[in-house]
Amino acid sequence: MITAYSCRCGRTYRPTADRWRCDCGGLLDLPPAALPWPPRRDTASLWRYLDAGDLPWREVTMGEGGTPLVEEDGGLRLKLEYASPTGSFKDRGAVVLVALARALGATRLVADSSGNAGAAAAAYAARAGLPAEVFVPARTSEKKLAQIRGHGAAVTVVEGSREDTAAAAMARVGETGAFYASHVHNPYFHEGTKTFALEVFEQLGGAVPDVLALPAGNGTLVLGAWRGFEELRAAGLSGGVPRIVAVQAERCAPLAAAWAAGRPEPEPVRAALPTVAEGIAVAAPARGSRVLEAVAATGGGVVTVAEDEIAAAHAALAARGLWVEPTAAVPYAAVRRLRAEGSPLLGGTVVAPLCGSGLKASL
Amino acid sequence: MITAYSCRCGRTYRPTADRWRCDCGGLLDLPPAALPWPPRRDTASLWRYLDAGDLPWREVTMGEGGTPLVEEDGGLRLKLEYASPTGSFKDRGAVVLVALARALGATRLVADSSGNAGAAAAAYAARAGLPAEVFVPARTSEKKLAQIRGHGAAVTVVEGSREDTAAAAMARVGETGAFYASHVHNPYFHEGTKTFALEVFEQLGGAVPDVLALPAGNGTLVLGAWRGFEELRAAGLSGGVPRIVAVQAERCAPLAAAWAAGRPEPEPVRAALPTVAEGIAVAAPARGSRVLEAVAATGGGVVTVAEDEIAAAHAALAARGLWVEPTAAVPYAAVRRLRAEGSPLLGGTVVAPLCGSGLKASL
Ligand SMILES: Cc1ncc(COP(=O)(O)O)c(C=O)c1O
Ligand SMILES: Cc1ncc(COP(=O)(O)O)c(C=O)c1O
Ligand SMILES: [Zn+2]
Ligand SMILES: [Zn+2]
Repeated sequence: MITAYSCRCGRTYRPTADRWRCDCGGLLDLPPAALPWPPRRDTASLWRYLDAGDLPWREVTMGEGGTPLVEEDGGLRLKLEYASPTGSFKDRGAVVLVALARALGATRLVADSSGNAGAAAAAYAARAGLPAEVFVPARTSEKKLAQIRGHGAAVTVVEGSREDTAAAAMARVGETGAFYASHVHNPYFHEGTKTFALEVFEQLGGAVPDVLALPAGNGTLVLGAWRGFEELRAAGLSGGVPRIVAVQAERCAPLAAAWAAGRPEPEPVRAALPTVAEGIAVAAPARGSRVLEAVAATGGGVVTVAEDEIAAAHAALAARGLWVEPTAAVPYAAVRRLRAEGSPLLGGTVVAPLCGSGLKASL
Repeated sequence: MITAYSCRCGRTYRPTADRWRCDCGGLLDLPPAALPWPPRRDTASLWRYLDAGDLPWREVTMGEGGTPLVEEDGGLRLKLEYASPTGSFKDRGAVVLVALARALGATRLVADSSGNAGAAAAAYAARAGLPAEVFVPARTSEKKLAQIRGHGAAVTVVEGSREDTAAAAMARVGETGAFYASHVHNPYFHEGTKTFALEVFEQLGGAVPDVLALPAGNGTLVLGAWRGFEELRAAGLSGGVPRIVAVQAERCAPLAAAWAAGRPEPEPVRAALPTVAEGIAVAAPARGSRVLEAVAATGGGVVTVAEDEIAAAHAALAARGLWVEPTAAVPYAAVRRLRAEGSPLLGGTVVAPLCGSGLKASL
């Protein structure tokens, strides 16, 4: 599974514990890879989909993946990503990064996060025996902080934006030489999140849904799911990929603004008011242009939802037995609104994830 | 799946929405049933193990069951029951009771609980469109209360013991004719929890573990797991059942007291101090004699753990990436202690559940 990183500037790198960006400053990617298929039968976890021969995943796994896909009315299916070991979909990426860190001989790990990715990184780092430091913005839910600290990670709360938090983490990586377990910068995170797509495909009996409504902060699920469905297509297992509808909170919507303006690259926004969707409040998503590319390539769109729509979606989910944190109601909020509008973006089988547990939210 | 209830007095009853105990006052049981095997392939949920033709389970399920079994050292395996839709193993039983309530034409539902069973009942009742009322003791974690209320259930907090809470619920059932979704009184709850055993069997590649270390408050997991392994044996799929080690908190241990004294029936205890293991603080377990029978029949035992052992086990789990509520650390605490003592109760493959999420605990 460990293949070279590449940058758009043409450089490539063999992964090492301290490499997280190109010497040109660019983002690292992974080349397209052939999908091993059918999945292995010796684990029910997401590792069944990964060619993980060179990663010590058995020492790190907590059986992540394999989340339920439940049926709602009108062809909608919700995937319960919150029924994951740490309570969010970030487990998918975090377990891969931590296994990679171990394979590369890392001795410590740094992450930054709005909370869920940090909780996942802290949990898997603990399991792998790697000391971890997690940087979070002020306003991170108490429950997520307790979880990160509970796993023994050192927490630094950074005043300022989500971007200031990332900058603090990068500085720490620079000082310490720690492995940067970044869900934004390390492309192996998407090897984990791509399994979301592979599970949906199998759970639909070997079919591709028409639409994926996905949250987009940094876009790790958008990019992973896109990769997964593209790999299925490249392997000749499916004829197409779903339309990806990326959903942002109106109060912090750099991708939606770029999409609406036809710009290929988002411009940082300055949120006047905080959104209840703390998990996707990313003003300057580093892989924003890639997210826009995924949306365009699949014939999808970027939409926003207002605070009251998020609250209404959250309540509607609870009334259906589904207990999520506010951020996790965002894709469903978009589905409700687009349906009410009769939007052509919807139609056919629609899959939306419920990304984080309601038990994570502050009371 | 709907078969007659039986009582030890000899009476039997066709299940109806208002039947929850025998006219003699005794507890209702289900007769042994043949296990449908192999499991169905059209769902990954626990319903694959149940002959559920007459229950509207597809309208109620949230994909519960199929929780990971992770390996720790020395032949120990932990089953992540907290990675369930509502964050505890109670989903297994609650989904069956709610599907049954629907099949029997119930129009409302009452439950009583230390918190987790109430949260599960509230969630599945919401999904089934049944109004629910949940009675909980004072001291129930805020997070569990928020979850129950979030699903629209009416909550009544009862001052006094867990038994006072049950009495209040029974009174309400009497007044309203509601379906009593009791994990203690309704034996269908064990049809749900028995799937814990069937999953362990499959996850071990068709093998029976040597030991199950299980929490015991009312003993719904003990009784369900026992039933599951007995059904596997009766079907000729296995040669024996695991030793069941039932674990209680030292501060509230009526079953351990009866076991130590060789009494077949527990006597109610009066806890001098509350235990951090709120989920198993049951002073007078209604099915206590059955739990003792399960333990005796399988060659197991009843053991207790002290508050500091629970805390140490909780911390050790967190250091392994596993985030549980204090009650859920109890079986693991027992495994650690019995190992340290070199107890003959252990040996071979040991399976213990992690029953509830750390996100449920008060901060
Ligand atoms: C609950 C929840 N949903 C969605 C997201 C968005 O993920 P991303 O920033 O990768 O787009 C996050 C990120 O933390 C999250 O916690
Ligand atoms: C986390 C947890 N573990 C164990 C139990 C014990 O279950 P029982 O009372 O059925 O033995 C409970 C019951 O609520 C619980 O919430
Ligand atoms: Zn470059
Ligand atoms: Zn009777």
